[in-house]
Amino acid sequence: MSRLVFKRYSSTITTKSTPSKAHHHQPIPVSSFPSGYLLTGVHAGVKKKAGALDVGVILSTSERPTSAAACFTRNAFKAAPVIISEKILGENVGRARAVVVNSGCANAVTGAQGIEDAWAMAKETDALLSPNSSGLPPTTSQTLVMSTGVIGQNLPISKILSAIRSQRDGSQQTLGNDFNAWERAAKAFMTTDTFPKLRARKFNINGVEYRMAGMDKGAGMIHPDMGPPALGPLHATLLGCIMTDAAISPRSLQRALTYAVERSFNSISVDGDMSTNDTILLLANGAAAEKDGVKLKEIDEGTDREAFEVFKRELTDFTIDLAKLVVRDGEGATKFVTVTVKGAPTYEDAHRIASRISTSALVKTALYGEDANWGRVLAATGSVPLSSPLHANKVSVTFVPSDGSIPLPVLINGEPEKVDEARASEILSLEDFEILVDLGGGETAEAAQYWTCDFSYEYVRINGDYRS
Amino acid sequence: MSRLVFKRYSSTITTKSTPSKAHHHQPIPVSSFPSGYLLTGVHAGVKKKAGALDVGVILSTSERPTSAAACFTRNAFKAAPVIISEKILGENVGRARAVVVNSGCANAVTGAQGIEDAWAMAKETDALLSPNSSGLPPTTSQTLVMSTGVIGQNLPISKILSAIRSQRDGSQQTLGNDFNAWERAAKAFMTTDTFPKLRARKFNINGVEYRMAGMDKGAGMIHPDMGPPALGPLHATLLGCIMTDAAISPRSLQRALTYAVERSFNSISVDGDMSTNDTILLLANGAAAEKDGVKLKEIDEGTDREAFEVFKRELTDFTIDLAKLVVRDGEGATKFVTVTVKGAPTYEDAHRIASRISTSALVKTALYGEDANWGRVLAATGSVPLSSPLHANKVSVTFVPSDGSIPLPVLINGEPEKVDEARASEILSLEDFEILVDLGGGETAEAAQYWTCDFSYEYVRINGDYRS
Repeated sequence: MSRLVFKRYSSTITTKSTPSKAHHHQPIPVSSFPSGYLLTGVHAGVKKKAGALDVGVILSTSERPTSAAACFTRNAFKAAPVIISEKILGENVGRARAVVVNSGCANAVTGAQGIEDAWAMAKETDALLSPNSSGLPPTTSQTLVMSTGVIGQNLPISKILSAIRSQRDGSQQTLGNDFNAWERAAKAFMTTDTFPKLRARKFNINGVEYRMAGMDKGAGMIHPDMGPPALGPLHATLLGCIMTDAAISPRSLQRALTYAVERSFNSISVDGDMSTNDTILLLANGAAAEKDGVKLKEIDEGTDREAFEVFKRELTDFTIDLAKLVVRDGEGATKFVTVTVKGAPTYEDAHRIASRISTSALVKTALYGEDANWGRVLAATGSVPLSSPLHANKVSVTFVPSDGSIPLPVLINGEPEKVDEARASEILSLEDFEILVDLGGGETAEAAQYWTCDFSYEYVRINGDYRS
Repeated sequence: MSRLVFKRYSSTITTKSTPSKAHHHQPIPVSSFPSGYLLTGVHAGVKKKAGALDVGVILSTSERPTSAAACFTRNAFKAAPVIISEKILGENVGRARAVVVNSGCANAVTGAQGIEDAWAMAKETDALLSPNSSGLPPTTSQTLVMSTGVIGQNLPISKILSAIRSQRDGSQQTLGNDFNAWERAAKAFMTTDTFPKLRARKFNINGVEYRMAGMDKGAGMIHPDMGPPALGPLHATLLGCIMTDAAISPRSLQRALTYAVERSFNSISVDGDMSTNDTILLLANGAAAEKDGVKLKEIDEGTDREAFEVFKRELTDFTIDLAKLVVRDGEGATKFVTVTVKGAPTYEDAHRIASRISTSALVKTALYGEDANWGRVLAATGSVPLSSPLHANKVSVTFVPSDGSIPLPVLINGEPEKVDEARASEILSLEDFEILVDLGGGETAEAAQYWTCDFSYEYVRINGDYRS
């Protein structure tokens, strides 16, 4: 709408070229993708650019029941796809066999039409599934829905539905389980992302090898706070979808996801803004849960705690990997910074301080300027109300380089160090480094980590004229 | 320290010249200043620039006892002047006769030396006062201390002490009560401020005319959360000092200030960062509390509630005026935006949402880009946990121009309006406007206001190389 007129600094701004972030997207061996899934990404025309993938479809083809878990935004203005997916997941008691996603339009603040459109996307995707072996009532859907993009506009729904329908037609069908299919699906999630975000890993439980793969997208409005269904709503657009061929009960799948999301997607910040559409979905289809030709029972926390803990740990590590990709591709980001807070009275205290430092505009502009301005880190730390008082004379701050060289303490027990500025510059000029804040509560105290990026001219440029 | 290298966008950035903000600083008639005060600002050499005023002194010369009240940062890393001032005010049970301030160095995170230096500033200023008629024990001080500037560096204390001492020497003394003296004091508060912030007003209580004048400074690290002494610590640098010639008891003065600060300085945000030094001081010396030649008793909430309410209202309006000046001069700011939230379940809910909108990086970059992006306003609104659930279908958002022309509704009862984009551009291109969010709780529900500015390239520039 409005013409963005940029202000005076052209004459004073010299430039530093930002290297492409695309190297964070690497091909993954086909053998790493979980069995029993078909995926694709197609161009429906939600995005204006010719050929840009904007609708993704993910189907579970396993003959076993597929468990599903989700974490949704806690924003009070939940988008239609969030409302519909939460409803479907509830009605199906943690089962679902498909996911459909569109980028380019968030289907948020779109009233009754928006709900109808999200429901139509789910139903159209159901038609791609093999005849129902799920035992679900025909009144509901087996598809979870995600949308991301501009708020307050209706979806071009007929374009989206015919794109989904194209996958029923042999000549146009692009569904597959190779790298190309997974990458197409990942690309269909992208908005202001500069590269598709796709990862995969293998893991073992009780001697059986399973696989897990997933994709996510982010870039802006990234400061998620997601809870399990029915915990209530949020708004920022982070979308992610993870698939595994392990068999795990719906209840345990949800518990593992809730734990993992708190330590991964709920511990990243690009700009401190929470979206109406944030959604992380997790499917477990049991396609590989077989040993010596015998189908294994679903893993459940109650009956096999050890197996559950292995799964939870693998999932947490995997979600952290995916979450970090979002920060690396943060709008205008030139730095990837880990904020670690240790020695805190509780995990929540540590997490709250890490979040505050990670969202401080002054800290983030200092990171952009490569300035070891620990005063701003300290001010942010001190501004957080805690469960018990902070002892200023026990707090230490250290800048830790990512290249394995010696860390640089800047504050020890509340006393500023004489800082070697050349060394500080060296560390701050790295693309990756860590800010370590020790509140001095000792090794038995709690710790939390957050991942953030810097605040640049480019961030202001991207968000000053997003709608234009 | 680090050399700030700016990034690629020079070629894409066209410029818009930012008009000087200095017109917000206007001369004030001498008759508007309260009686019984002497002020000055001098160059001590804390600031490098030759002649830049960096030490301010304010003395009460009234023969009546001077009441003093304060609100200090709640940051856990309280700067030395905050610790000392809080202690002195406590020991004196709400009495003080002088204020000393320095800019250029915050005396924060400076350990035992910092405490000693703040104490020395107070003692040196005591020596400028007429022989003690305060009845205070000689072990404490009658001076409150404020500092602002870089964190983690010791004050050049001997330069500061000799600057204060110069005011005892007839030839160099510049203390006065004219516009020039008040302006010099206001200039001594400035750091990245582009103009001194000085205001004055007259008011009547029970037929007696009183005056109130004050100054403040801000620019960056502005998101105060200040409480009365002993409520605990914060960190951002907002400093302000208000003087009146009314007579009011220390207890009632503190209550009025706490109320006023919540609705003024604690309702502004430049960058969402809270400082270690935030301090607002208020002196009431009773120099004008005389009617028909008879000295009036101190106003007290217990004995004259009506007079107290008048004073509280005048003070609140005055602190809002001063607080707005800080936002107008926010680092890199090109817009002055009022955020009003009404129809909320409680004042705290309304205040929390207004604060969240005012600090949203996405909202603030959209303001800079003059984009009526109500989706971001809504996302910020929905991300705040409230005392009772928000009804998305009752929420309305309106852009209100400051020129008295017709407001533009963009969302009514949760439904997006067909927005006239030309009209939206017209409003958003104004320097001043209001974002009005109505949660739909009706006219009896609670409301709160916040004042904020936009987020510009200039903000990133200023804070990317502040220390360099």
